[in-house]
Amino acid sequence: MTPRMSIPCDILLRAGTLVTQDARRRVLTNAAIAIQAGAILAVDGWEALSGLYQPRETIDCRGDIVLPGLINTHTHAAMTVFRGLEDDLPLMEWLQGHIWPAEARLTPEIVAVGTALACAEMLRTGTTCFVDLYLFEREVAQAVLDAGMRAVLGEGVFDQPNASAKTPDEALAKMGELMAFCRGQERLKPCMVAHSVYATGADTLLHLDALAREHRLMLTLHAAETASETAMVLAQTGQRPIARLETLGLLTPRLLAAHVVDVTEEEITLLARRGVGVAHNPRSNMKLGSGAAPVAALRRAGVRVGLGTDGAASNNALNMFAEMNAAALLAKLRGLDPTALPAKDVLDMATRDGAMVAGWPELGSIEPGKRADLAVLDGSAPNLQPPHNPVSHLVYAASGAEVRLTMVEGRVLYRDGAFTSFDYPALVREMSSIRAWARKNT
Amino acid sequence: MTPRMSIPCDILLRAGTLVTQDARRRVLTNAAIAIQAGAILAVDGWEALSGLYQPRETIDCRGDIVLPGLINTHTHAAMTVFRGLEDDLPLMEWLQGHIWPAEARLTPEIVAVGTALACAEMLRTGTTCFVDLYLFEREVAQAVLDAGMRAVLGEGVFDQPNASAKTPDEALAKMGELMAFCRGQERLKPCMVAHSVYATGADTLLHLDALAREHRLMLTLHAAETASETAMVLAQTGQRPIARLETLGLLTPRLLAAHVVDVTEEEITLLARRGVGVAHNPRSNMKLGSGAAPVAALRRAGVRVGLGTDGAASNNALNMFAEMNAAALLAKLRGLDPTALPAKDVLDMATRDGAMVAGWPELGSIEPGKRADLAVLDGSAPNLQPPHNPVSHLVYAASGAEVRLTMVEGRVLYRDGAFTSFDYPALVREMSSIRAWARKNT
Repeated sequence: MTPRMSIPCDILLRAGTLVTQDARRRVLTNAAIAIQAGAILAVDGWEALSGLYQPRETIDCRGDIVLPGLINTHTHAAMTVFRGLEDDLPLMEWLQGHIWPAEARLTPEIVAVGTALACAEMLRTGTTCFVDLYLFEREVAQAVLDAGMRAVLGEGVFDQPNASAKTPDEALAKMGELMAFCRGQERLKPCMVAHSVYATGADTLLHLDALAREHRLMLTLHAAETASETAMVLAQTGQRPIARLETLGLLTPRLLAAHVVDVTEEEITLLARRGVGVAHNPRSNMKLGSGAAPVAALRRAGVRVGLGTDGAASNNALNMFAEMNAAALLAKLRGLDPTALPAKDVLDMATRDGAMVAGWPELGSIEPGKRADLAVLDGSAPNLQPPHNPVSHLVYAASGAEVRLTMVEGRVLYRDGAFTSFDYPALVREMSSIRAWARKNT
Repeated sequence: MTPRMSIPCDILLRAGTLVTQDARRRVLTNAAIAIQAGAILAVDGWEALSGLYQPRETIDCRGDIVLPGLINTHTHAAMTVFRGLEDDLPLMEWLQGHIWPAEARLTPEIVAVGTALACAEMLRTGTTCFVDLYLFEREVAQAVLDAGMRAVLGEGVFDQPNASAKTPDEALAKMGELMAFCRGQERLKPCMVAHSVYATGADTLLHLDALAREHRLMLTLHAAETASETAMVLAQTGQRPIARLETLGLLTPRLLAAHVVDVTEEEITLLARRGVGVAHNPRSNMKLGSGAAPVAALRRAGVRVGLGTDGAASNNALNMFAEMNAAALLAKLRGLDPTALPAKDVLDMATRDGAMVAGWPELGSIEPGKRADLAVLDGSAPNLQPPHNPVSHLVYAASGAEVRLTMVEGRVLYRDGAFTSFDYPALVREMSSIRAWARKNT
């Protein structure tokens, strides 16, 4: 009798249902994932892997649904501090009367606390990686690192002064510090951030794109969010936003354009030809009355489309399950077509396509060689029964709160009500001071 | 020194934040609710009531948000058995190829199990009362009674044979049995149910309305759900659905019309003048590609509008928090107007307006004399922080899974992960047989 093989590994996770999101979109039952040093070593049936591996820890998710960690491709994490501060207002009244005055008084400390809250909310609902554009991003990076999450981060470069930087040069200096901070960090990547073609001058846009090219980073900005943005850019430049970006030479595979609601068929074709990535933010687009992005058409044209929550001031949740649901329903409403954007496409957007859009191809599926980022949902939740179709349930029925475990880089960060990487009750206690700060500043 | 007063009561519930939904929409902090024999005795500050009442039980929800139990004004509870069975199909292919063949083989036992699952899902997400239209409603009534919930129930009367009744007369006989069953039950009310003006003959419609008038019951049906329904009714009768209902004399205050998507300004005015109630089902309307109901216009005209989930085959969740969120976002998208249907209006629809629409004015707010139906949300959930505005959080940020306690008629039915009125793990074990049954029948 030959001795039984026994390969050591950190974790062997047993999954009742495993939605791999691999190239064949396999959904395995009674499966297992072997994890070592933050990476996925093997994926197979439980019987096969439990006979092969000698784990330091076994995680039993026998009654549960396991899927890749969700990837939020557009957010402003620290804006959780503004959640529910004001809603239901005309856009400019909301921005000028409430958000901008409060943002003018942002501090590194407020941004750090807001980001920690955002990380808690995202981990609670199965998100493991996000693309963040905001101010004081060095503090955001530290909060992400502390929470154990993964993020692509960029300091917004504005022509106007803001709380974080008085000039574009100062913002660029902060961006340099952020890049230095991210160096050697497995879970952090920097990216260049402009606001938009209407709020950022051509010189700054070109400079940011040149830096992105030089440092092989992504450049991200808001584009074609509303018809009124289109009107504004037309008035400023004689071109619509996407055409303006083309003229500036900014439509490249390193560009991640957020929103992309008000676009023509020709512009969609151009985005596809240039290899631009898009972050679709259905709930924010609905709440602000911006419109419905032509997601099905973008995907048909071959554009890579991820999902994003946008900031908590315009959503008001950083919950990718809510976002998946909204994406599917909004596409069907837009086309008055129940076959538009089926559940499997939406799950792709939130996982493997999101990984490509975020420039992190080592994420987005559960297969050997990928990083060990995943979420586990309680399969016995009433809304996930009967067990007809896990992919349908994830997109159409899950609320996100069925998540009972979230793992990043092989480390369990949330499990059954408790966060392992930070003191959540202490964070909640800090929220009354955020409330006081916001009251004073708006 | 006078002796301290001490009025006995069943429960004194202490609320960190109490969203009363009373006429003044008061939101109280550090408040209390005194409950006796299923009714609300008193609502006031904790200090005031705790000095006045001597409760048998004190429920401490100091860190939580307490609101009236949500009211789902249109659903088909037992259809949970079809959740996720098929999605993303053209309407007729979905109905003819999947839903109708399975419905033809429904049994009383399947309906009972499906309703129990629906009750679990609704209790888990703070819904305490629902309006149910389906088959085998006597079994639905028993399941509701067993779960401890509250419902308005009606057996669907179809001209075509179905699994529950071969003829309209048989369905009417079943309706009679249901009415007898509901008699004397505090938590059950019967209602008359027709499918629609296109699937129910004029004679049957008139008969059902006459019965509703005679027994002082509500009549409910589907109306103006899609443009293709309008085309069909026009072809059949030469009139649009609402006009057809008017011709038949069915537009009365006892009518509850579900969906009401494809309506004109004139029809909205008519619905308001006739006092018809409307159940708005935003997620179902989106998922089936039906369109966006003109909710803001209906409310402006004075129509009473409640919220409904529709059945789990077309949603796929029976979660009124998801429905509130969808209603608010959809209205803003429809009008491209961020001020449309603000959070407070949506919360009214899900509570006090829903109570009127369901014909149960003793529900929908937390004030003395109302029935003790309420939901408690964990105020420390990441997505409900910072505590800027509880009404905004309930509508825009909550997922429904923050609910940690649901009470109906003064009885706690769900608390911190456990259902008190039935054996939920046993129900989940039954779901594999539902899976087998569905596989065999579609």
